[in-house]
Amino acid sequence: MSHNTFGHLFRVTTFGESHGPALGCVVDGCPPLIPLEAAEIQAELDRRRPGQSRFTTQRQEPDQVKILSGVFTDERMGRQVTTGTPIALMIENVDQRSKDYSEIKNAYRPGHADFTYDVKYGIRDYRGGGRSSARETAARVAAGAIARKILPGVTIRGALVQMGPHAIDRGNWDWDEVARNPFFCPDAKAAAFYEEYLDGLRKAGSSIGAVIEVVAEGVPPGLGAPIYGKLDSDLAAALMSINAVKGVEIGDGFAAAALRGEENADEMRPGNGGAPTFLSNHAGGILGGISTGQPVVCRFAVKPTSSILTPRASVTRSGAEAEVMTKGRHDPCVGIRAVPVGEAMVACVLADHVLRHRGQVGQSAAWPFGA
Amino acid sequence: MSHNTFGHLFRVTTFGESHGPALGCVVDGCPPLIPLEAAEIQAELDRRRPGQSRFTTQRQEPDQVKILSGVFTDERMGRQVTTGTPIALMIENVDQRSKDYSEIKNAYRPGHADFTYDVKYGIRDYRGGGRSSARETAARVAAGAIARKILPGVTIRGALVQMGPHAIDRGNWDWDEVARNPFFCPDAKAAAFYEEYLDGLRKAGSSIGAVIEVVAEGVPPGLGAPIYGKLDSDLAAALMSINAVKGVEIGDGFAAAALRGEENADEMRPGNGGAPTFLSNHAGGILGGISTGQPVVCRFAVKPTSSILTPRASVTRSGAEAEVMTKGRHDPCVGIRAVPVGEAMVACVLADHVLRHRGQVGQSAAWPFGA
Amino acid sequence: MSHNTFGHLFRVTTFGESHGPALGCVVDGCPPLIPLEAAEIQAELDRRRPGQSRFTTQRQEPDQVKILSGVFTDERMGRQVTTGTPIALMIENVDQRSKDYSEIKNAYRPGHADFTYDVKYGIRDYRGGGRSSARETAARVAAGAIARKILPGVTIRGALVQMGPHAIDRGNWDWDEVARNPFFCPDAKAAAFYEEYLDGLRKAGSSIGAVIEVVAEGVPPGLGAPIYGKLDSDLAAALMSINAVKGVEIGDGFAAAALRGEENADEMRPGNGGAPTFLSNHAGGILGGISTGQPVVCRFAVKPTSSILTPRASVTRSGAEAEVMTKGRHDPCVGIRAVPVGEAMVACVLADHVLRHRGQVGQSAAWPFGA
Amino acid sequence: MSHNTFGHLFRVTTFGESHGPALGCVVDGCPPLIPLEAAEIQAELDRRRPGQSRFTTQRQEPDQVKILSGVFTDERMGRQVTTGTPIALMIENVDQRSKDYSEIKNAYRPGHADFTYDVKYGIRDYRGGGRSSARETAARVAAGAIARKILPGVTIRGALVQMGPHAIDRGNWDWDEVARNPFFCPDAKAAAFYEEYLDGLRKAGSSIGAVIEVVAEGVPPGLGAPIYGKLDSDLAAALMSINAVKGVEIGDGFAAAALRGEENADEMRPGNGGAPTFLSNHAGGILGGISTGQPVVCRFAVKPTSSILTPRASVTRSGAEAEVMTKGRHDPCVGIRAVPVGEAMVACVLADHVLRHRGQVGQSAAWPFGA
Repeated sequence: MSHNTFGHLFRVTTFGESHGPALGCVVDGCPPLIPLEAAEIQAELDRRRPGQSRFTTQRQEPDQVKILSGVFTDERMGRQVTTGTPIALMIENVDQRSKDYSEIKNAYRPGHADFTYDVKYGIRDYRGGGRSSARETAARVAAGAIARKILPGVTIRGALVQMGPHAIDRGNWDWDEVARNPFFCPDAKAAAFYEEYLDGLRKAGSSIGAVIEVVAEGVPPGLGAPIYGKLDSDLAAALMSINAVKGVEIGDGFAAAALRGEENADEMRPGNGGAPTFLSNHAGGILGGISTGQPVVCRFAVKPTSSILTPRASVTRSGAEAEVMTKGRHDPCVGIRAVPVGEAMVACVLADHVLRHRGQVGQSAAWPFGA
Repeated sequence: MSHNTFGHLFRVTTFGESHGPALGCVVDGCPPLIPLEAAEIQAELDRRRPGQSRFTTQRQEPDQVKILSGVFTDERMGRQVTTGTPIALMIENVDQRSKDYSEIKNAYRPGHADFTYDVKYGIRDYRGGGRSSARETAARVAAGAIARKILPGVTIRGALVQMGPHAIDRGNWDWDEVARNPFFCPDAKAAAFYEEYLDGLRKAGSSIGAVIEVVAEGVPPGLGAPIYGKLDSDLAAALMSINAVKGVEIGDGFAAAALRGEENADEMRPGNGGAPTFLSNHAGGILGGISTGQPVVCRFAVKPTSSILTPRASVTRSGAEAEVMTKGRHDPCVGIRAVPVGEAMVACVLADHVLRHRGQVGQSAAWPFGA
Repeated sequence: MSHNTFGHLFRVTTFGESHGPALGCVVDGCPPLIPLEAAEIQAELDRRRPGQSRFTTQRQEPDQVKILSGVFTDERMGRQVTTGTPIALMIENVDQRSKDYSEIKNAYRPGHADFTYDVKYGIRDYRGGGRSSARETAARVAAGAIARKILPGVTIRGALVQMGPHAIDRGNWDWDEVARNPFFCPDAKAAAFYEEYLDGLRKAGSSIGAVIEVVAEGVPPGLGAPIYGKLDSDLAAALMSINAVKGVEIGDGFAAAALRGEENADEMRPGNGGAPTFLSNHAGGILGGISTGQPVVCRFAVKPTSSILTPRASVTRSGAEAEVMTKGRHDPCVGIRAVPVGEAMVACVLADHVLRHRGQVGQSAAWPFGA
Repeated sequence: MSHNTFGHLFRVTTFGESHGPALGCVVDGCPPLIPLEAAEIQAELDRRRPGQSRFTTQRQEPDQVKILSGVFTDERMGRQVTTGTPIALMIENVDQRSKDYSEIKNAYRPGHADFTYDVKYGIRDYRGGGRSSARETAARVAAGAIARKILPGVTIRGALVQMGPHAIDRGNWDWDEVARNPFFCPDAKAAAFYEEYLDGLRKAGSSIGAVIEVVAEGVPPGLGAPIYGKLDSDLAAALMSINAVKGVEIGDGFAAAALRGEENADEMRPGNGGAPTFLSNHAGGILGGISTGQPVVCRFAVKPTSSILTPRASVTRSGAEAEVMTKGRHDPCVGIRAVPVGEAMVACVLADHVLRHRGQVGQSAAWPFGA
């Protein structure tokens, strides 16, 4: 991961600003002969798309994706497939509301990247947050949709498990519920509560943080690499790279610090096909940086949106005092739309490691168990 | 970060196993003309060295570092300096106790990388954990000592802030205390408690997790890069790549999820030299992936050592049932020695970003404030 | 260089096929605050554009470039500048002539990538050569135009110095002549000869190879890096990556093999400002992989276009015998349009090394000479 | 390729100077379970080792390689194999003759990297050429020996085909002859001539250039990747990175510029197993950056050694005039020992591309021909 490129063999390079002509990405290294239609990418983008409820920004963006390269309709296969060459995806911005930016053009929103972009580059595209806008994550979701296609048998699902100080009741967890409420919340009761809770915050011109959990099931054992190419290290980088994320956990995460060795160690028993069955999953499916075959479990914390209606003390570009209050259209809980983004990042990391494993070790992993 | 190499311009490649002839690293991309003596690297290694108290493994390793390349004693400067070419460091293993490994050779320690290395590679050097041993982190500390040399004005300090469920009292924080107890703990009272607590666990053949905090002061604003080269993303990858780490936080971390926008946003006031003064540091010194000039604050959770005396259910290489109990020499709280390792990783990330920033933007950052 | 990305700090990722909707590139790592207009990129593209004489393909492509991201019109500067974020460029394909591809769809053109793409990926976009089309080089020229902007004081010029077996007379070299003939040839006499020569080949349905020379003047000493990041190594990779290139030389190149040490060694005499003056430039401006301050001189050989009207023996996808003869629109000497492409690649390599040098060593190189 | 690291999945990082304690490399990404003994690496090193005839430097270096990591003797296999973790190799320098370096310490040898290292880094280890010494290539040869082990069925052989202006007679080519003369020359007659020729040059205190050819047979079709990861582009970078190399060719190389399309295009006829048989190999086994299955043929030009006894005009570090004449021990034709180095680089590139191809496309390439 460096600059705007992510991944080693499955490589994603994103580009674009909130109010420029378009944003998108180039996915390089995708295996050939994989059926791929724009509609499949669109389906994932639609889950992240803004303006679908009153709990996300009201900006109206259809987020229509266009495939510019890397696919071909082969008559033998009768459908469009990848060719092994770079797949460029473009999403045109259409609702760049003509707006007076005088407020944030010269003053820095506290908690926002306004100041740091300016101090680093000496310039920033302040329209809608420019490159630091959450709109950039649309390109990630598009890339993730391609990554999913090279992970047959792997199910990657995300859920909002905490909003503000209010965590869900894990006993109520129902994956089907996630699609039924505007919060991607697997606990129907919590979702009902969040509706009222977030309405209150929204009306007060405030915002709130959240915790997201992503679970990948069906991940084969053996993905990852020692030391700096560890699967958990790459997941941490990927999730921490999402806008507003301030913490990442694998498995028990910070709770593991409170455990004794005998509590934390996931015991094993002989399983089917020679592979062991694990009796618990404190490890979140990763040991020594390599997948165990259990579900890969990660969580990340999203801070509250920094664009709020409450005035906050700040400074201007020229160093004078200012009070900043952000009108405009914003997500009161940016963690909500981070759910499909988190899934996409996990998908990209797994796809990359599948290709890397295949490269170093070969398709038929060296399985130590008897045939 | 990929494979065993870390960093983009300041690049560290580590090698070595617990019981092989030697371990070490190659530091590539270090600027030239930096005074560097083996003794400076040794001083950092000595902080991580095992066998210095009864609370770390009793393996006796002097961890003597040898510089194999990349330095030269220039008579004009009258001392040894870096030359800009790769600096190879080697630490020979000397206390590979001749030991019967029959126990872990064929059975997998629950919670350990034994199983995953075997399932990935079809082979593992089981002696002392091989490549997955915490001994590998000596090479990181050595690299970190070089990284510190190219960060003049930056102070990077780590501390153990929680052992098991017992967090320190932050009101007692005294950096000087860290060097006075065997736990790198900044709270003298907590350190006294940990002594008794860990003795109990050690005698019971158990182990315990911990939380480490690393603070970098004097970091200039503007380090980092948008999207996948974010400073926090690289820190997360670096810290999560340390053995046994299961969670990483920047600034308020997971606690930020519970905050409202107006609580989380660090307000600014005009400061000296045109740069703003921040009134709080919930962000941990990073906004939009770029440093703000405030202290960079990160925390990571270390799980309990998986090599314990308590027998746990497991399986053998051939898939049969086994009970595993690890005698041998082990750290009852591997989090303790993770403190200098965490510092080293933060130093390497910052050094890399200093060079990268200098590369893209130039030495005199485009400062938006008046002269 | 790997996959479709080129460069380390100044990174170019290209995408697109000959007959897809668009081709383009993402330039990542460009310094901020550099004035950049689409027209500047267009000017370079126009030099490479097909259909400008009867000696290049008659495909009519305006090659209009669109900047999708990474620039912003800052009112303080009063003009559009780079922002330090990725610059995405798109060139839409407009003249994808509806054509019967039955001929090359199933049979492989000898000397062409048809066979190898198919054997590698099991599929190829055969329309116009797909990804292996020379159209891909438009994206390189566009990237090169940006690279030039961060090389103030450096002049990069290319010229065709040989067509078929006919080399130019170096005594006639006139850089101004290059823009006056359709061959980018610096020798007016040779250009006149080539006109007739190439007409003959074109009418005979044949094609011919060429040698291109690129000279970069004003390159500061010190660019490059030891061993695998050598300036000449990166130039060799860059030039060899251009379609149809089969050989690369720096300075005297292969002729250096015939020299004795005392002939080849470029002698030095004290020069202005402390820097030495070289008495010759057999080295082509690079010693030990690092620039000397003399002009960087490289040459590359371009094989003849493999799409010719003369029938050649070949095989079909299913392994049967075939005779292949390529009608369609093709360059009789693809080396001609390789001139601006070669310049662009040299510009990209130099830009990358300027940023890398600045990153490792700093803006004010450690100059050993007295003030 | 960047800095001192080479390759994408099979990654080699070299380190070390001519007169430091040791040089070596870390090979990262090597597949596991490959039998590997130090003796196998030693055998390749012995071919490159200096002091074996009067035609190479008289420095006495045993070049004994030590494997520091990445291998393990698995009792099941009964022999030492790779484990998939980084393989560190170390070669200690033993004959760093205590010598007066006053001559080259302050003055620059014309044609040598003395000046450029100094101008870049402001310092250089002048003892024996430091990092720019040909001794660095020992590490490459060692890495190449490992690369060969993951290329079963591929034969990589190099030969000196020209010394000074004197090319061999290709009609006399006999691979067995290469091991019988001190020049790695496949033409016995030319070798006899070179003996006398080089003796004359050596006694005159001069040196001479050479051309080396490396041929890889048994390379499967499909290795390589479009655009910047082309097999020929990576070969060009690898060969141009060898000390003193000034030109690289694939297949017909520069001679291809003189050919017409119908001469250059390698015709195909149906072959065994569905794959085509090529009727010629002008392409040198690579089309569109991807291997064809024919022998991969590359050549590179090596300039004459710049350390000669003939005095040449130069300057000192402080910018004063100087005459430089290099006594010491040097190769009169550094091209000779470049033969095993060239083979090693080709082996590393091919190994990298085998792993990369396996990663993206899978072990069973998508073969378009009937079963």
